[in-house]
Amino acid sequence: MSTQTKATNIVWHQGTVTRADRARVMGQKGATIWLTGLSGSGKSTVAVALEQALLERGHLAYVLDGDNIRHGLNKDLGFSPADRTENIRRIGEVAKLFTGAGLFAITAFISPYRADRDLVRGVHAQGDFVEVYVAAALDVCESRDVKGLYKKARAGQIPEFTGISAPYEEPAAPEVVLHTDQESVEQSVARLLGWLEAQGYLGT
Amino acid sequence: MSTQTKATNIVWHQGTVTRADRARVMGQKGATIWLTGLSGSGKSTVAVALEQALLERGHLAYVLDGDNIRHGLNKDLGFSPADRTENIRRIGEVAKLFTGAGLFAITAFISPYRADRDLVRGVHAQGDFVEVYVAAALDVCESRDVKGLYKKARAGQIPEFTGISAPYEEPAAPEVVLHTDQESVEQSVARLLGWLEAQGYLGT
Repeated sequence: MSTQTKATNIVWHQGTVTRADRARVMGQKGATIWLTGLSGSGKSTVAVALEQALLERGHLAYVLDGDNIRHGLNKDLGFSPADRTENIRRIGEVAKLFTGAGLFAITAFISPYRADRDLVRGVHAQGDFVEVYVAAALDVCESRDVKGLYKKARAGQIPEFTGISAPYEEPAAPEVVLHTDQESVEQSVARLLGWLEAQGYLGT
Repeated sequence: MSTQTKATNIVWHQGTVTRADRARVMGQKGATIWLTGLSGSGKSTVAVALEQALLERGHLAYVLDGDNIRHGLNKDLGFSPADRTENIRRIGEVAKLFTGAGLFAITAFISPYRADRDLVRGVHAQGDFVEVYVAAALDVCESRDVKGLYKKARAGQIPEFTGISAPYEEPAAPEVVLHTDQESVEQSVARLLGWLEAQGYLGT
């Protein structure tokens, strides 16, 4: 059990390590897998399950989510419209770096605005950005309300809460749609793995 | 030649993938290898050579440098003191994320201020931050002047140029010192690899 390369016969094409070199050595192409959807739609759950499933299959992935971004890189940002846009921009740039390193960067942020997501898509090379719409009906998300946020939002304690007092703009042409209100986490992950496999991301 | 894990017998300790899981699967501990030194001291050269040497040995590393940071994540930052500090802070946070993913994040920035570097060290867990002082004498760096920056700085065309019109604060207790004015790039890389090996970073 090791990701160590048997690298005695590696020939680098130039002085620096290229994306193609990495894909060859790592056995995967790497990409930003951008999960978007309402609070409670299951983004984080799918993200960590996908990360684990990829690692179990010998692929390298890393989840970027509120836990490791909001308290670190983006701790200087608040929740103004400008700060929300900057939050998504930076996450997109970091995901791009991970993709450049050959990994799957799996991001789990509501990212409700199409313009913000399209900006992130725009900084990625063709094929490096996989938009995944985690589509669960609002009433399902609200009935889950794991963190009690919908209740607070309905009570007016959270301003501009996506789906309640702020819009969620559905992806116009996402690469994958997951109906997490109609399928299990395992089914969502299996569909994502199948899509990545079919599109050639899991080979070299 | 593949980093794919032979993962049939992986047992995850919990729902999410831990650092220990990653170390076991990847055959390395991962760390931020923070190169600091004057312009022209050889940071970038050592960084890309170390990255390549690690990959040739089956380890995963990724270089963060001006090329992939200043035009992306930090393109909103200028060169004011506050922006320089924020530049280093963000790079440190991104390197921490890579380290969290189990990789070696190799950074190549002058990062002249001790306070900025110590801030980055402070956000890392013990042992995850490896400060490498790329120590070449100023006159050697200036005589190389690959980008012609020293000439411009001496002519007063670049304000606050490290070593000329702005200070470089040497690391007080770096993990490694490379005397790149007295040894070849190959020797520097061999010393770094030896250090990482001796400290247990290249095993699990």
